[in-house]
Amino acid sequence: MAEHNVCVELVRERQKCTFEVQELIHLIDGGITATEERREVENVVCTDPRIKDVVPEEYLSHKERYENAIRKNCILQEILKKYTEKRTWDNFRPSNKYRISSGVVKDISPFMLHTGMFIPTLVNQSDDEQKAKWVPKAMSMEIIGTYAQTELGHGSFIRGLETTATYDPNTEEFVLNTPNLTSYKWWPGGLAHTANHCIVVAQLYSKGQHYGVHPFFVQIRDIETHVPLPGIKVGEIGPKLGFQTANNGFLGFENFRIPRRNMLMKNAQVLKDGTYIKSKNDKLTYGTMVFVRVIILFDLAFELSRAATIAVRYSAVRHQSQLKANEPELQIIDYVTQQHKLFIGVSTSHVFRVVGLWLWNTYVKVNADIGKGNMDQLPELHALACCLKAVCSRDAAARVEEFRLACGGHGFMTSSNLPIINGIVSASITYEGEFSVLMLQTARFLMKAWNGVLARKTLTPTVSYLSKFSNSDRVQWANTTAGIISGFQAAAAGKTKEAYAAIQSYLKPGTDYEDAWNSASVQLVSASEAHCRAILCEISWSEMQRLSKTVSPNLGKVLLELAELYLTYWSLEKRGDLLMYTTISTADIAKLQARYEELLALIRPNAVGIVDGFDIRDEILNSTLGAYDGRVYERLMEEAKKSPLNAEPVNESFHKYIKPLMLKAKL
Amino acid sequence: MAEHNVCVELVRERQKCTFEVQELIHLIDGGITATEERREVENVVCTDPRIKDVVPEEYLSHKERYENAIRKNCILQEILKKYTEKRTWDNFRPSNKYRISSGVVKDISPFMLHTGMFIPTLVNQSDDEQKAKWVPKAMSMEIIGTYAQTELGHGSFIRGLETTATYDPNTEEFVLNTPNLTSYKWWPGGLAHTANHCIVVAQLYSKGQHYGVHPFFVQIRDIETHVPLPGIKVGEIGPKLGFQTANNGFLGFENFRIPRRNMLMKNAQVLKDGTYIKSKNDKLTYGTMVFVRVIILFDLAFELSRAATIAVRYSAVRHQSQLKANEPELQIIDYVTQQHKLFIGVSTSHVFRVVGLWLWNTYVKVNADIGKGNMDQLPELHALACCLKAVCSRDAAARVEEFRLACGGHGFMTSSNLPIINGIVSASITYEGEFSVLMLQTARFLMKAWNGVLARKTLTPTVSYLSKFSNSDRVQWANTTAGIISGFQAAAAGKTKEAYAAIQSYLKPGTDYEDAWNSASVQLVSASEAHCRAILCEISWSEMQRLSKTVSPNLGKVLLELAELYLTYWSLEKRGDLLMYTTISTADIAKLQARYEELLALIRPNAVGIVDGFDIRDEILNSTLGAYDGRVYERLMEEAKKSPLNAEPVNESFHKYIKPLMLKAKL
Repeated sequence: MAEHNVCVELVRERQKCTFEVQELIHLIDGGITATEERREVENVVCTDPRIKDVVPEEYLSHKERYENAIRKNCILQEILKKYTEKRTWDNFRPSNKYRISSGVVKDISPFMLHTGMFIPTLVNQSDDEQKAKWVPKAMSMEIIGTYAQTELGHGSFIRGLETTATYDPNTEEFVLNTPNLTSYKWWPGGLAHTANHCIVVAQLYSKGQHYGVHPFFVQIRDIETHVPLPGIKVGEIGPKLGFQTANNGFLGFENFRIPRRNMLMKNAQVLKDGTYIKSKNDKLTYGTMVFVRVIILFDLAFELSRAATIAVRYSAVRHQSQLKANEPELQIIDYVTQQHKLFIGVSTSHVFRVVGLWLWNTYVKVNADIGKGNMDQLPELHALACCLKAVCSRDAAARVEEFRLACGGHGFMTSSNLPIINGIVSASITYEGEFSVLMLQTARFLMKAWNGVLARKTLTPTVSYLSKFSNSDRVQWANTTAGIISGFQAAAAGKTKEAYAAIQSYLKPGTDYEDAWNSASVQLVSASEAHCRAILCEISWSEMQRLSKTVSPNLGKVLLELAELYLTYWSLEKRGDLLMYTTISTADIAKLQARYEELLALIRPNAVGIVDGFDIRDEILNSTLGAYDGRVYERLMEEAKKSPLNAEPVNESFHKYIKPLMLKAKL
Repeated sequence: MAEHNVCVELVRERQKCTFEVQELIHLIDGGITATEERREVENVVCTDPRIKDVVPEEYLSHKERYENAIRKNCILQEILKKYTEKRTWDNFRPSNKYRISSGVVKDISPFMLHTGMFIPTLVNQSDDEQKAKWVPKAMSMEIIGTYAQTELGHGSFIRGLETTATYDPNTEEFVLNTPNLTSYKWWPGGLAHTANHCIVVAQLYSKGQHYGVHPFFVQIRDIETHVPLPGIKVGEIGPKLGFQTANNGFLGFENFRIPRRNMLMKNAQVLKDGTYIKSKNDKLTYGTMVFVRVIILFDLAFELSRAATIAVRYSAVRHQSQLKANEPELQIIDYVTQQHKLFIGVSTSHVFRVVGLWLWNTYVKVNADIGKGNMDQLPELHALACCLKAVCSRDAAARVEEFRLACGGHGFMTSSNLPIINGIVSASITYEGEFSVLMLQTARFLMKAWNGVLARKTLTPTVSYLSKFSNSDRVQWANTTAGIISGFQAAAAGKTKEAYAAIQSYLKPGTDYEDAWNSASVQLVSASEAHCRAILCEISWSEMQRLSKTVSPNLGKVLLELAELYLTYWSLEKRGDLLMYTTISTADIAKLQARYEELLALIRPNAVGIVDGFDIRDEILNSTLGAYDGRVYERLMEEAKKSPLNAEPVNESFHKYIKPLMLKAKL
């Protein structure tokens, strides 16, 4: 990039950096080749003039925004084709190689669920014949699909879905119906006006028997004309806090018929005569859910890295207030309160990425075992994916919000891109499993594990610490990273034990277990969170330590500082837990606080270098505040000038409404 | 309201309610007459058919939204005229009587700063002659104004503003200039295309001397044509996370001349020959700032009450999941984790209202003293208003976000109104004083107070607890409301002491005080927050207790439950502090947790009644999820059907982009 246009503050920051930014970039990408491949794709996409907005998206009407998004995303799909063709679902690896769509096209693509849910479900839940028929068409976008599960009246409770699929052996078809208003499919991205196919999750009935929810492959629009097929009611659900261009839709069926073989039959099946063949294992479908939650962790790490780049660069460019009279105004990044807002977010992006990779590797291993018929580790993986998705999505939203606030008023502007990132990240707290629902799933696993502790059984790896800290004594505190990790495990064990005891105490008067569970659920969620924090601390520290040994000493030092900052920040945040479950003293906490402030100072000179290490092109960052050259004020004014309201000096509403109001005042 | 249309869940909830909702309504309004007056105005406004949207605002383009907002707000101003005419600024009292604008017209009015800042500044900072000339015109809307202080490059640091006003004694005029890009005024609501006047805060120069920032009354557009006057560059700054219809603008001056008497001269003055007469007291302008921050507290309480009404009613209507197999799906409000999300927010709205009223009364008293020349209490009032504005805006945003999340996916829909409320509340964290800046102002007051403690001086009322808890022993814990309040004060005292010590420790190696202050600033903010929490707990408890004695026992009981919930929730949240600064034991914390769960259960049956007590009309609530009748799903579908995208079965972008993409795939 041409350095001569870069503002003096960022030039100076980059000169100060003590490590090689390129090395960090390669580390994050997973090697030099990966960086080169990613950059090649990004360069092709970002330099294509067709993909640029004529008028910035945020000035358009809701309808125009959708049309603009379709235009840009179709061009993007076309460009990406030669790269995605090399990809199959067997060689899929999470990386940020294809993480360009939400950047370049600004908001969420109407095709997001086509690639994110439609194809993975076809791959995972179709039998071989179905896969051969559908997957290539979906991969090439000859058909465009989405995943329709959630209904107006049902989200997290899948068993409660109301859409029915009733088998008719005479015609060898399923008849789909939407019995009530609340049974309309509601939310699927791309469903409204984009997809011509979808996976529909519906209650299966055959021979008068009810067999629970199953997935069906359903064509909803004519391939040639795109007109909804007879018996299909489809449309969009309206504007939202974010995801404005996702084209979320509703869908209703009126005696809509599909062939028998459109039920996805890898697991359960319905034979021609209507005989139902049960799936060998109910838990097989957990796979896709876990997969999606792993991917969410990477998405969160990426969105955090975008927000971090914007806020850190802006904080280096922005000057405000004199710390001392008669001295120049400070770069706001030099205020320690600002560092407190920024650096934990930077660190969290790294933590989510390395924990995400670790979870991915666990998933691959467990999946291989499942292939061999061994499902023993599935409950543990499921419990992990639940709490990590729940806690990390909340944490990411909090960090993005903090980044936005760190940019003051300008962070509130759409052109900063922070509001859009905020919308993307906030949504993830709810979709693919609502926070409390997921936390209570993990809590159920913890309660079973605690039964194991009481029965002196050997526990699975991620909860083995429960046995270690099962007695009531406070754990000996040590002011080291190992000590912090032990402290978090002690807190998780203590809270698990207390939640278990709370259920027992609510049970006593003869209440049902479920009611006692409900009464204790605030404590159960708290135990899940503590467990998740222990995992995040333990895994991030071990992974960052491992990585630090694979790089040059200067970069290694930075990685360890970021990892230690994460542990220290959370120790101080959760000092209430540490005080309850370890022997930590007030003096120890003061030491942690001092070390925290020291780490902020250590990270400060490298802050811009660290976010440069995320290597996010301006076109993908999409921010007036975060561009590589730091020309913040010029960009803010240039963007403002694009407003259609600024095209005319006097808006017509003056003559129509304001002037008459002023004249009446004079009377 | 016609009860026969109300869904069965809400009918049942209302039957369960143990207190008289009308009594709560009157209590919140401040008496029966106040309720009647408020309802009269609301009824006139809400039943006026002209004020309704043709197409819901959120489907419009940015420009159309502005035009629609002007249309609605001009009608609103006209309707309100006969009520506002009775109002003068001398008889102003905060109440929710006129809190209808943000409700009925959905988002922020382009006239907000006309009433919220332009008029108050004219009233407070003009001399009598100026007041007589300008205020009636502003009150009648013969002129429309805003308040232009913030610039592109400067927000919180007012002394750093760059716009200049140079006095020219030859023509007896000030010459306004915008020397740099960063000196453009940026952000004022209504500035872009709505206001024809504004208060401009600029650096005053006279006779070659610089006299710091002063306010000027400036006409920027022609009264008849609305065309910007020569030498004025004005326009809008673009879309934002919220405040979409606020018409925030930028403004630049090129040798723009205004008469000498357009400088607001209640305090400082410039004479005809250019002689500068200093203000008698620099702190006089604090008054407006404090006033605005008090008003913000009421705004936050109101927005919280809107979000609470939406989320609580929805939670009573929505069913999801079976707690026990073969039983019907529960109302989600029966999940204790949901109560945990909801009730603290409901309680917080009451707390902010009563603390706001207390702060208002303090403000009135201090203002009266200032009139008598006594400014002793101003620093304390300023310190209070700073931390309360900072902490309450953050808390309100967190609570609104929790309400939104409590509504699951549907809370993400614009039609729920939660995203708009979220935008309004989030903005308040930054405007009128950024969080950290305000917290450090309060911290400065606390450090002075601590000096007072060390010098054994008598402290002012709100910090007198610092002396009480100044020794190092942990404070004796008592598991009562009084004990909790003492605990919070002990924590605030402990943190103040530690922050003071932290500054000293950073000072030792010979550093400047300002650098030491900066290094310790994370701890200083933490001390400010602890101080603010102690105030919120103490005042809310005493006020709610007082109020509970003025009402019937059944309502009194509910008020005390809400107030105790607030104390208990925060004790558990801040148990780390209590463990550090009091003798609270693990067993005490377990008791608090049990009491917290008990309070959730006590409040549960009255939850809908309590939010009905906010008495917010459907037209002001503006929510598909929160309407009085609970017809959630019908409303969601009705709103979706209004989408212009749903007017045609196939969007033209299919033929233009999607179909060609599909065809290429086939090749």
